[in-house]
Amino acid sequence: MPAVRLQLSMSLDGYVAGPRQSLENPLGEGGMALHEWALATRTFREMFGSEGGETGIDEDRAAASRANIGATIMGRNMFGPIRGEWENDDWKGWWGDNPPYHGPVYVLTHHARDSFAMEGGTTFHFVTDGIGPALELACAAAGDQDVVIGGGASTAGQYLRAGLVDELELHVSPIILGSGERLLEDLDDGLDGLEPVDVLSSQRVAHFRFVRS
Amino acid sequence: MPAVRLQLSMSLDGYVAGPRQSLENPLGEGGMALHEWALATRTFREMFGSEGGETGIDEDRAAASRANIGATIMGRNMFGPIRGEWENDDWKGWWGDNPPYHGPVYVLTHHARDSFAMEGGTTFHFVTDGIGPALELACAAAGDQDVVIGGGASTAGQYLRAGLVDELELHVSPIILGSGERLLEDLDDGLDGLEPVDVLSSQRVAHFRFVRS
Repeated sequence: MPAVRLQLSMSLDGYVAGPRQSLENPLGEGGMALHEWALATRTFREMFGSEGGETGIDEDRAAASRANIGATIMGRNMFGPIRGEWENDDWKGWWGDNPPYHGPVYVLTHHARDSFAMEGGTTFHFVTDGIGPALELACAAAGDQDVVIGGGASTAGQYLRAGLVDELELHVSPIILGSGERLLEDLDDGLDGLEPVDVLSSQRVAHFRFVRS
Repeated sequence: MPAVRLQLSMSLDGYVAGPRQSLENPLGEGGMALHEWALATRTFREMFGSEGGETGIDEDRAAASRANIGATIMGRNMFGPIRGEWENDDWKGWWGDNPPYHGPVYVLTHHARDSFAMEGGTTFHFVTDGIGPALELACAAAGDQDVVIGGGASTAGQYLRAGLVDELELHVSPIILGSGERLLEDLDDGLDGLEPVDVLSSQRVAHFRFVRS
């Protein structure tokens, strides 16, 4: 079975996205700040077509987050700002013609839509029967590689509370968002079998890693 | 003016104390785990009368947290489990005959009580007119040294939201408490002038530091 990985950037007050997500603010207001550490790394600069970038602990964690991904699962808000029925097939996701997934992506939604392929190997599939079936499809597609739960907060929280995540990494920046979407809520049973591995940090962000014991 | 410092240990889901604080669980259920990193250090082992202890980043931060303290402010729950009127003067705090403060401590309460001195230089004073007057008294007593807001969550949050904290350090462990007392709530204005200095970590805890700019 592929390992199921969840890797999210989080504010010190626990938010993985800012409030009022919209077309202008896909990560919610202030949410982009959560990803500044990543956008400074060589891996993410390459991913977005620019050069240079830092090496060191943050680059190591960024590269690890991008390695060995066989399939990705995401919630509908992470795919786009549209709610309710799809009016047409014009919206192709937030990421342009060549999305940075380069493999199968399973989008959780209540509204069926045909799969479609993008440049660079990304194919979006739409799953209407919940997190379990989406995971089965993703695992079947991933083969020897891992399945990544891409987000957002709601989707990630559902997989976490269901005990379906095998490796968790939270990248915590010294940022206070004050409101938005929290990941670590309703976890009365804690992380349910996930044990801390270590804590690593650069001067700007701390990486907390857990694995299923 | 003395610097006002706030240093608290926090779980990854944002709790600085566990739920259901009681005489048996002064830090709330599960709350002691937040302090495991500190209890492993040389500074805190000495403080509680045992030998040995680790050196390194955690010891450096533990020693810094104990240095240059002229006065301490705490909420009543941090002083004891008693609520409402003081029935008598028998309760002298959680810390035994020789409390680890060794200086003036101002306890916020709605119920007046006479000051009293303990072994080792700790004197407990009781302040009934709120966080501002308590801070004035503490600053006057601290002289050239700093004032530390000892906690708990409610008292610390009041000082933080009032913009009265000059230096903030949060020690975040990879622990999920699931419920308890959160510090970083109702911070719509963020940290109001506190800027991140750096993030430091050992393998077991990350230290996030902020100072007033």
